[in-house]
Amino acid sequence: MTKEFISAEMQRLQDRICKRVEQIDGKKTFQEDLWTRAEGGGGRTRIMRDGAIIEKGGINFSEVFGEVTPMMKQNTEIKGNHFFATGVSIVLHPQNAHVPIIHMNVRYFETDEGTYWFGGGIDLTPHYVSREFAKKFHLGLKKVCDNYHPEFYEKFKQWADDYFFIPHRDETRGVGGIFFDHQHETSEISKEQLLHFCIELGDTFADLYNEQVSEGKGKAMSQDEKNWMNLRRGRYVEFNLVHDRGTKFGLYSGGRTESILMSLPNDANWEYNFIPSIGSSEAETLSLLRKGIDWLA
Amino acid sequence: MTKEFISAEMQRLQDRICKRVEQIDGKKTFQEDLWTRAEGGGGRTRIMRDGAIIEKGGINFSEVFGEVTPMMKQNTEIKGNHFFATGVSIVLHPQNAHVPIIHMNVRYFETDEGTYWFGGGIDLTPHYVSREFAKKFHLGLKKVCDNYHPEFYEKFKQWADDYFFIPHRDETRGVGGIFFDHQHETSEISKEQLLHFCIELGDTFADLYNEQVSEGKGKAMSQDEKNWMNLRRGRYVEFNLVHDRGTKFGLYSGGRTESILMSLPNDANWEYNFIPSIGSSEAETLSLLRKGIDWLA
Repeated sequence: MTKEFISAEMQRLQDRICKRVEQIDGKKTFQEDLWTRAEGGGGRTRIMRDGAIIEKGGINFSEVFGEVTPMMKQNTEIKGNHFFATGVSIVLHPQNAHVPIIHMNVRYFETDEGTYWFGGGIDLTPHYVSREFAKKFHLGLKKVCDNYHPEFYEKFKQWADDYFFIPHRDETRGVGGIFFDHQHETSEISKEQLLHFCIELGDTFADLYNEQVSEGKGKAMSQDEKNWMNLRRGRYVEFNLVHDRGTKFGLYSGGRTESILMSLPNDANWEYNFIPSIGSSEAETLSLLRKGIDWLA
Repeated sequence: MTKEFISAEMQRLQDRICKRVEQIDGKKTFQEDLWTRAEGGGGRTRIMRDGAIIEKGGINFSEVFGEVTPMMKQNTEIKGNHFFATGVSIVLHPQNAHVPIIHMNVRYFETDEGTYWFGGGIDLTPHYVSREFAKKFHLGLKKVCDNYHPEFYEKFKQWADDYFFIPHRDETRGVGGIFFDHQHETSEISKEQLLHFCIELGDTFADLYNEQVSEGKGKAMSQDEKNWMNLRRGRYVEFNLVHDRGTKFGLYSGGRTESILMSLPNDANWEYNFIPSIGSSEAETLSLLRKGIDWLA
């Protein structure tokens, strides 16, 4: 299975997800920007703005390759002298505080040292956490995981808890999901199956999102709820800029900044030392931004 | 000169600056939060909100000490096993797009390896760059620098150009200022003089800020100008969270997050691929966010 084949699969996946998300939004379509990277490769950035459901969202494909620069060696975990990376990356910020932010990424990486791996993740960041909807989300992810390995869900769910975590806030980014990295063939799973796992995750994404959108999109949003949404978006910005390895890899490998930072919301707020009042739904949400919650229970 | 003496000087500096900035704002005063750090030390965070001039600003003193943790070793440049750090750190975000954001920091650091150093910086981030006001700012900084060493201004101005730079945007954060780090006594300057340099910089801060505020504060601000201000604030967030060493040191050394992130604005925007129209004052500002401009010329 060549890297060209994997890259083509990723492009087709991007096409399918864009179509489905446009159907879900129902108002706007994605606008495409093609870009090339001076050092090798490029991408197809697709952005939706001011949709019915989605205020700002990006569904990006990229295929980048070239020399591993000193800056990359210093700031990322890449080894070897040349690399190749391809994948699809999504972040959708909704209009309504009662609809969650969602993120998905699947990627393939190889270096001239002869190593390759698949990685990816899906996680959900509700502005207001609902146990019921967090359970639906995790059930959907478990179903895909179980098609490939009986231990994937448990392992990758825990990995997401650890990865989508903001240490300086002692908060998870949201209700988690799954995260995996450095997955290569073993006696239990082939390279082809790992690719299929990534593609099936991608094809499940739109259904999972649709389920999350359906209830909240019709709810009225008060000014206080809008303010809270913007504070939570501030946390999203903090995670992405301080911790997210994908963002760091992009910025330090000379990726296209506007494509990488499409993950940031239209607007975000920071209010000094904001503490929600006891018993509020905002305080309830904060109490659920914890590692180790079994959302399936 | 003991570290306790230096720390006390820093506290007195904070007191004086707070008073002067309250006079400049004329409407609001700073609210103080005292905090302690479990591993040693603490600080006095002082925040102003919804002032006449200042929308959100912090003037913080901190004195932290303790073990150099593995997380600090990995994410900062600290060597040795124990450290002590004290200083004053300021960021002021104005209400009006025609008033610049300003930042100042002076700090003293020592480790149990017997090394110590002073560091600091002041830089100005106008939402709309004016050559005239950038010149006034740099002239004021040069005057302080020249009192201590004939080469300080030139050297520290260039250091600021390099430090207050956003590589992934290929933009400086603003019109720069001065930045210095790892300054210890030499045959040309004593430890006492370095402290005096830091203190004089701090005492000059309020006058420099007042000069910058005076013209812009009375100007009307259109919605387009407000939008542009929020996009520039987005860049400020990017610099602070992705690059700023002070922010990283704070977050990775277990500092108080709300005190460190007082540097973030009340609100910030990200618009995908926003490009100002040719000939606009926004485009003019972008053209001046470059390293190596001689603002004194």
